[in-house]
Formats: sequence, structure tokens, C-alpha cells
Amino acid sequence: MGKVKGNMLIAQSGGPTVVINQSLVGAIIEGKKHNEIKEIFGSLYGIKGILEGNIIDLRKEKVSDLKKVAFTPCSALGSVRKKPKDEECEEIFKNMQKYNIRYFFYIGGNDSAETAYILNENAKKVGYEFKCFHIPKTIDNDLKENDHTPGYGSAAKFVAMAIIGDNFDNKSLPGVKIDVIMGRHAGFLTAASALAKIYEDDAPHLIYFPERPFIIEKFLKDVDEIYKKYGRCLVAVSEGISDENNQPIAAKFTKEVDAHGNVQLSGTGALGDLLADIVRRELKISRIRADTFGYLQRSFPGIYSEVDAKEAYKVGELAVKYAVGKYESGSVAIKREKGKKYKVYYEVVPLENVAKETRSMPDEFINNENNWVTEKFIEYAKPLIGKLPEIGILRKYKVKI
Amino acid sequence: MGKVKGNMLIAQSGGPTVVINQSLVGAIIEGKKHNEIKEIFGSLYGIKGILEGNIIDLRKEKVSDLKKVAFTPCSALGSVRKKPKDEECEEIFKNMQKYNIRYFFYIGGNDSAETAYILNENAKKVGYEFKCFHIPKTIDNDLKENDHTPGYGSAAKFVAMAIIGDNFDNKSLPGVKIDVIMGRHAGFLTAASALAKIYEDDAPHLIYFPERPFIIEKFLKDVDEIYKKYGRCLVAVSEGISDENNQPIAAKFTKEVDAHGNVQLSGTGALGDLLADIVRRELKISRIRADTFGYLQRSFPGIYSEVDAKEAYKVGELAVKYAVGKYESGSVAIKREKGKKYKVYYEVVPLENVAKETRSMPDEFINNENNWVTEKFIEYAKPLIGKLPEIGILRKYKVKI
Repeated sequence: MGKVKGNMLIAQSGGPTVVINQSLVGAIIEGKKHNEIKEIFGSLYGIKGILEGNIIDLRKEKVSDLKKVAFTPCSALGSVRKKPKDEECEEIFKNMQKYNIRYFFYIGGNDSAETAYILNENAKKVGYEFKCFHIPKTIDNDLKENDHTPGYGSAAKFVAMAIIGDNFDNKSLPGVKIDVIMGRHAGFLTAASALAKIYEDDAPHLIYFPERPFIIEKFLKDVDEIYKKYGRCLVAVSEGISDENNQPIAAKFTKEVDAHGNVQLSGTGALGDLLADIVRRELKISRIRADTFGYLQRSFPGIYSEVDAKEAYKVGELAVKYAVGKYESGSVAIKREKGKKYKVYYEVVPLENVAKETRSMPDEFINNENNWVTEKFIEYAKPLIGKLPEIGILRKYKVKI
Repeated sequence: MGKVKGNMLIAQSGGPTVVINQSLVGAIIEGKKHNEIKEIFGSLYGIKGILEGNIIDLRKEKVSDLKKVAFTPCSALGSVRKKPKDEECEEIFKNMQKYNIRYFFYIGGNDSAETAYILNENAKKVGYEFKCFHIPKTIDNDLKENDHTPGYGSAAKFVAMAIIGDNFDNKSLPGVKIDVIMGRHAGFLTAASALAKIYEDDAPHLIYFPERPFIIEKFLKDVDEIYKKYGRCLVAVSEGISDENNQPIAAKFTKEVDAHGNVQLSGTGALGDLLADIVRRELKISRIRADTFGYLQRSFPGIYSEVDAKEAYKVGELAVKYAVGKYESGSVAIKREKGKKYKVYYEVVPLENVAKETRSMPDEFINNENNWVTEKFIEYAKPLIGKLPEIGILRKYKVKI
């Protein structure tokens, strides 16, 4: 294609994050700097907006509004979970042609990268000329080619903060507490709970990942041991934990499936309640509670990682730079430089490399017992979430009479 | 009693809050200022610590640590849900005598006030001389005699922030969302969700309180109406909602009961899931999610109302002042001055006035449809939670082709 002149279209897709609008605003502001880009349009609710002609003019938005939007959680353009069929691709290109779209940016996770890939492949077939880019986001941190993904650091910070608080709650009124954390196939977000631990007896005491089979007997043995040691036990468990046959434990309670074939795991307390019931029944401990952190993890306003916000803005900005430059299509990937000091660089990778398939926690991040993280994970995750609130504890000098 | 010299003992009881340690630290710092008070002791896990001789020396704690503890969520001394029997009172006084306790402060809700009341009555009977004070806290905001209670403002702020975020989440991926909020008999915390609303179509769209019978048919009609209007519907519902026979809807799924006769309503996602199932079945809407905000509401670090933190400190400080002064026993109550500007004053009220019985949302705070708050409630609650994070939205100028 080489140099292309025309309009730019941007959209958001999949589960939102707290910093997904940073990428949107980063791309809009960058788009304004290039003569190749005439109009800057937004499609509402992902590709659904293109199909329905639900297109807005983003150049008309005030910069002061955009700056606030960047720090506002969740997809400002609306989102969708939709995989385009071949006949829908045709319809999409027909509409793109009407709006003279030559630059297309799709912010989302692996399913969204797949949508961008499908569009790009179909465009080649029908000869529709556009530059097609995927801008990464996902609290799951499960995109291939990436060291980590925008959205993860902020969600991880929320989880770590929630566990810091819940550790004190569980200390105040001791018992067994089960906290269910998002993450369909990847345990990165659940693992972030480990960042809450400061003192030896702090929670989380146990962490379970979707990457390892969840064996009820082992889980009960682990809980029993911790409870005997500390008189309490706080467990962080991924919503995606699965049995030896790779069957998600939570999926036994739900039937809803989205367009990408994903079973609904979030938005229900069933898994936490199930685990609480098992502990209550088998271990005869009286105080058992379960919380499912739910959508707060990806939408709570004001709790974000500074690093995450900056990087989310950067990938939006870079996608436009790359598209206006020599690249035809691709996804912007975040890579980390080797060395002690945290530093990242960015690369364009082929769409198919991040589409559909996801990555999981590497083995070196999970301990041998399959119930906690390794020091390597802590080193990996710490710079991504930034500063946690300072806490204080009493030294508790016993009075002897 | 008049002037009393001896040691001070302080303890915490019931569900924790984010600012409960403000009261603890306020009382300790004030205690140090009075010659009448010799040693300053803390009992671990409420009155259980007195029974078990689990007493710590709070004078030895560094002031720099105490300052951090004040801003750390949940009961730094540990908590308990325990109502003392007569024979336990005897045991308590025997141990108090050993430690020469003449000033006793119990930080907690109405159950804790009842415990203080029982101790005070038993002390009179057996002739144990001490000054016995209750220091209020509860996120439920349900203490009699009080305009509001320490802990409420911060929990209310958390709820409002969570709903602000969840509103954007629900806007991103439209559907029906049910958020279950704490509050056994009082709807104040659930009502605080209303503070999240800025624009006309903002969530929460519906709010249900434990003060009004929860009629499934009316609930479905309400949800259906909102869903037809906005293409989405976010519902804030109290965990304590009950049917026409005053039977908590959630209680149908749980059996655990504490020493004060309270049925466990928190720490389970059952109510949210039940309501989601009913909506799914009856209204044939495909995307339904439920979140139960759970213990994060009372324990999330760093999210607190400035006003709440200050007042929580103040009631701790004042309890000691009153005890060293002319009062023999009582609870510190927060009253609000009439007038436009928010201003409070404090009073000592008899222990029995806040013990056991709780207060509910006044009728003037609930709308005629029983599904939202009134402007009066907004005026009441706004000054208690302080500033919410600024958000931004796109103006969405439609492109016409």
C-alpha cells in the first residue's frame, strides 16, 4: 500500500479495563498530528457500529474532555464481543468505503486481535485497501508476544489492594476466606494477590491458578494446614480453575456462551460459594466466607497503575505512528528489556501472532506445590503495579501480670 | 464514682471498617494526656481478650506506627462477635481487677454497645467500679441517636465509586447488572450507590432497600422498563432485602448464625445469583451479571472519606475526654447541626439507647416507588463521603454520510 491518505476509524472490543481509554485518547491525539489522516472517526460498540453506521466524529471532541476520558474506566466508545462472519466483513468494507476509512484500529484482547486479523485477511481477498491495527488491552495479561498487556497492571493493583484490606478483615474476624479473582485461562491476575503480602502471616496464604489442575483434596489439605498454623486462611483462587480433565470448576454452574465460544465465568458468586461449602462441610470450620471480586477489578475508578496508564496511552499513540509509517497491519506489543531496572520497548508483530490463542503463566512463576507464586513472579509483577498504600500494624507488647 | 484513677482498656468488636483504627488511635493519643489514666491497655479480639488475658500495652507502641495504623483498615486489635453471659461478666471483672482497669472503651456497632451495656449493668450489680464507654462504628449507619456513624462515609464512598465504574462497565457491554451491597436491616449503604449518578442515563437505575418488602414481580417490571428505555439496567440491591413476611431473601440460602442471632448474609454470592437467574428466566435478556461487593466495602485500603476519618478519630478522642470528665458511662453520638452547611456536634448518650436496636432509613429517604432515593437522602449523604473521582465522557457527535 505504501502511503495512504484517508480517514481513521477506531473502536474498542471485549472486556473493558481501567486504562483502555488511555489507548483511545493516545491514538486520537496522535492521529491529529498526521496529514495522511483526514477525519478521525469512532465506531460505537466495536465492529457493530460499522455494520450499523453508528459512527462518531472524534475530532470534534474537546481535548479537555479527552483528557478526562483517558482516566475514566471502561470503553468510552462502547464494546462488543463479536466475531465477524465473511458476509459481515463484506458489509463492513462497504460501510468503511462510504466513510473512506483507510486506517483502522481495534483496541482489545486476543479475540479482538482475531477480529482485526479476519478483517485484514478478508480485505486482501476483496481488495479493500486499509491499514489494520490491533491495540492490546486485557486485565488477563494473556496476549502472546507481550511481556505484559495494558490493563493488567491496574487490575493487578486493585487485586493487591483488595487482598491487603481483606487480609486485615480476615485478621480481625479469623476464619477461612475465599477470594475469586478474574482470569479465564491465565493466572496472572490471581497471582497479583501475592503482592499484598508484607509480613510472614499475611494473606494470601494460598493461590490457585487455572494453569494447574485444581484437586479438591489437595486444596482442603492446604487450607487445613494454614488454618492450624495461623487460625485463619485466606485463599486467592482464579475463576478459571479447572479439574484434571480441563473442565472449569465454575462452568458446572453456568450455561451462557459468547460469540467466541467462551463460557461465562464472571458475574456469578457460584464458584466461591461452592468452595466455601466444601470447606465448611469437610473441615468443620465455622466461619467461612467467599467474595468474588467481579467487575470491580476492571472498572473501579481512580485505582490505576501509573506505569500501566502511560503504557496504555503509548500503545495507542504508537499504533497510529506505525500505521502512518511503513507498516500495513499488525499489533503493538510491549517487550521488556533485560536487566534490573524496569524498561520496555515496543514492536509491531503480525496480527495472527496475538489472535485467538493466549498465553498462560510460565512454569517459573508457579511454585512446586502449585499453591503460590515464585520470587520470579514477584520481580516480574512489582514494577507493573506501582506503589501500594502504606499500612501500619501494632507491635502488640503483651502485658504480663 | 467521680474522679477515678487507674488503667484504661480499649477493644474493638463486630465488623470492621476502614476508619475503625482512627477511633482506636484517637482514644490512645487522648488517653496519654490525662493523669487519671495510668496504663493504656488493649484487649485482643474484643472481650475475648479480657477473658483469656490477651492484653497488650498500647503505651509502648510508637506514635509513628499509630499514625499509620489509623489509616490502615480493619480492627488492629482484632475483633469478635460475642455477647457476654453473666458468668463471663464475673470473669471479665476478675481479670479487669487484676489489670486495674477503671476506664473501658468498646469500639463497635449496636451489638458492641449492648455488650458494653451488659458489662456496665453487671458491674453495678457486683460493685465493680469502672467507666464504661461505647465508641460508635458501623458501615451500616444504623446506630440510634446518631445522625450517621463512623465507617459509613468511607464505605459509602467505596460503593459510590464501585457503581461509577460499574456504570461504565455496563455501558460498555450492555445488559442487566445486579450489585449486592452490605446492610443487614438498614439501606443506607445501598442508598449511597445513588451518589454515583451524574447523567440522566447513569446507574444505578434501580435501588432496593431492606426497609421495603421486595416483591419479585415489581422488581421484574422495574428492570424490564429500564432495560427497554436504556438497553441496559444496573440494579443496586441490599443484601438484607426481605419479602412481605420480613423473611430475608438471602437467608433462604444460608444457615450460619452468630452469637447475637444474626443470620449470615455477607460472604456469599447467592442472592445476586438468585436475582440474576430470575431476570434471565423471566425477562429473556441474554446478558445478566451479578456482583456482590462483599468485604471490600469495609476493608479496601486507601479509599476513605476525609470527613469520616476525622470524625472517627474524634469520637475515640471524645470518649476518653468524657470518661475522664463527669460521665460514668455512655456512647458518643454524632449529631448534625441544622442548616445548609455541614457541621456536626457530639453528645454522650446512655448505652442502652444505642444497644441492640438499630435504626433504618427514614421514609423521607426512599421514593414512592420504593426503588430509588429522594433528593433529601442525596443532601444527607453527600457531605459524608467527600470528593469522588472526576470522570469524562465523549460527546459523541454522529457522523452523517
